[in-house]
Amino acid sequence: MSQIQAVKTSEVLLLGPGPSNSFSGVLQAMSEPALSHLDSDFLKIMDEVKEHLQYLFRTSSPHTYIVSGPGSLGMETCFVNLIEHGDKIITCQNGFFGDRMHENARRYGAEIVQVKADWGKPIAIEDVERAFVLHPDAKLISVVSAETSTGVKNDIESIAKIAKQYGALIIVDAVTALGAIPVEVDKWGLDAVYSCSQKGIGCVAGMSPVTFSELAFEKVNNRNTPVPSWFQDITVYDKYWELGAKRPYHHTAPSQQYYGILAALRHIKSVGIENLWRQHEEISSYFAENMEKRGWRFFVDKSHRLPQLNTMLLPEGIEDAQGRARLRNDFKIEVGAGLGAMAGKLWRIGIMGANVNKAAIDKFLLAIDNL
Amino acid sequence: MSQIQAVKTSEVLLLGPGPSNSFSGVLQAMSEPALSHLDSDFLKIMDEVKEHLQYLFRTSSPHTYIVSGPGSLGMETCFVNLIEHGDKIITCQNGFFGDRMHENARRYGAEIVQVKADWGKPIAIEDVERAFVLHPDAKLISVVSAETSTGVKNDIESIAKIAKQYGALIIVDAVTALGAIPVEVDKWGLDAVYSCSQKGIGCVAGMSPVTFSELAFEKVNNRNTPVPSWFQDITVYDKYWELGAKRPYHHTAPSQQYYGILAALRHIKSVGIENLWRQHEEISSYFAENMEKRGWRFFVDKSHRLPQLNTMLLPEGIEDAQGRARLRNDFKIEVGAGLGAMAGKLWRIGIMGANVNKAAIDKFLLAIDNL
Repeated sequence: MSQIQAVKTSEVLLLGPGPSNSFSGVLQAMSEPALSHLDSDFLKIMDEVKEHLQYLFRTSSPHTYIVSGPGSLGMETCFVNLIEHGDKIITCQNGFFGDRMHENARRYGAEIVQVKADWGKPIAIEDVERAFVLHPDAKLISVVSAETSTGVKNDIESIAKIAKQYGALIIVDAVTALGAIPVEVDKWGLDAVYSCSQKGIGCVAGMSPVTFSELAFEKVNNRNTPVPSWFQDITVYDKYWELGAKRPYHHTAPSQQYYGILAALRHIKSVGIENLWRQHEEISSYFAENMEKRGWRFFVDKSHRLPQLNTMLLPEGIEDAQGRARLRNDFKIEVGAGLGAMAGKLWRIGIMGANVNKAAIDKFLLAIDNL
Repeated sequence: MSQIQAVKTSEVLLLGPGPSNSFSGVLQAMSEPALSHLDSDFLKIMDEVKEHLQYLFRTSSPHTYIVSGPGSLGMETCFVNLIEHGDKIITCQNGFFGDRMHENARRYGAEIVQVKADWGKPIAIEDVERAFVLHPDAKLISVVSAETSTGVKNDIESIAKIAKQYGALIIVDAVTALGAIPVEVDKWGLDAVYSCSQKGIGCVAGMSPVTFSELAFEKVNNRNTPVPSWFQDITVYDKYWELGAKRPYHHTAPSQQYYGILAALRHIKSVGIENLWRQHEEISSYFAENMEKRGWRFFVDKSHRLPQLNTMLLPEGIEDAQGRARLRNDFKIEVGAGLGAMAGKLWRIGIMGANVNKAAIDKFLLAIDNL
């Protein structure tokens, strides 16, 4: 047999909007041998993952699991289950990912009411209230917690409160939020929440933790039409993740990925979720202070700024593409470009998961001082 | 920071219907550091993966890529793109996975004509012909190449020929077929084919290689209604995998998984696909000869038996659950149970990917001699 060329990549400090670097121990866990998806040792791993996910989402909902695909598939799982053709939904849109939620709703034939805010601004609570006053028959509302495209934090707690008043379910994008800032599923009454496995979770990309409330699960159970997806139908999927039950075959689990997220979730549990939130705040403050000292300005007002995703306006003398290329090539650091109207005008600098430490920030500061 | 417990599993010889063990080099590749999905080094990896996939599928179609989810999601990607509400489809069903294809078609509102065969028998070509005679307006036909539930090989080449005569597109499940037995996408004229990343491909589970013909791609482009999935819409996804083009963001690629499949595909390329097919034949013959010598009998007639998935009737004196438990616990070997009416009556023994060698078979034979 001829010798094949090994796959090798270089170690890049990933300070973009994602992917971010993984916690130590994750890649090692992922190099453990495969187990069958129905092996009793593997089912124990799934059980432990589930318990940690409940801890992470701050929920006791049994409908909490990993969708075996990236965050974008988690988004789809929420929409495909909860929307029936003709259902009225209010979609909050103040960035790229709010727009993608809208696109999901559109594909399933929802009747859509849009609540928009300018990029860089949060969704106004009074706009959400007005939408429900005009459309009290809206069954759903969707909103992004941490808008990755702009660095804006939306006020999920207040929006969820209004949704409850009108008897609507709320779908929340927590892709850039989970593990980095509070996402209080039970306390705030969130009905369908999806995230990713990297960023604040500190694992590699490719999985989507999701959680559904009893109300959401009931709605899916009482649909008039079948969920237009067998793979993502949560009434089927739920049994695959049912603790201690006879677990029916659903799909061949990507075992190494589950090992990886288990390692990351054990790490999070050992640190404590509140401590993680505090660390994100502290390191972000350290970053902000040092960047402002150097004349950089934030795109987003402090009151609704995300600690984990900083959108920084490019100062005079730094050219977007050239600057990012130099960071990547000369300093092995990645930052993200601006999107839409902000392309060329700002950088998106993520400080998440394994990169929430002063050493990572110092490495970045040294690099921009030498750009 | 408190010390977390490392994730450890045991090395099991996976001779079930899947997952199977991965080629040497795969897990090592997967422990390389993450790269961003838009990093130029990563795009080169995607380009190389795509070229190897075309080699593997025996196609020159540019619509060839990996869906970032397991084979079941690849199945869904084929159906969700190609079916519009009310389209007539012929679903071939002679096992669990043919039934799952039918379930996918049902969820998208297709008008379904079923062609069935008993479990253990192949789809009869004359039944397919009759279905098209009665339903010449059928736009699609779906069939499993290697039926994992029974060990039966369907005659894809002949079924594809009939489909072409009637101007219908053909969706083929190649999950247990690809890499193990011939799947001639261009020569046979297959329009949508999906597989998995483990089994004959020798990587870990979690990805789904897919390929679409120009005809299929055109059909999706000319739909009257949007594909009821943003994530899986191949007209969007296609650009993410377009060789050498400006690659738009679609989702955060699971980079480690792509490294893993690249390592496996490089291995396949270095061995040669025809050599792989021959190896599967040879090792399966060695297995069959030795099993028959011991009084075991096959469930499936030799003429349509799969070399890579052997359904063996349990001989007197071997009890199903107890026997599998002993294999797993005492010998670290996994085999698969029978499904449906065959539960308790047979074992499904997979000889795929990294396990296609005499050493694996000898280990298994020694174990059953000592059961």
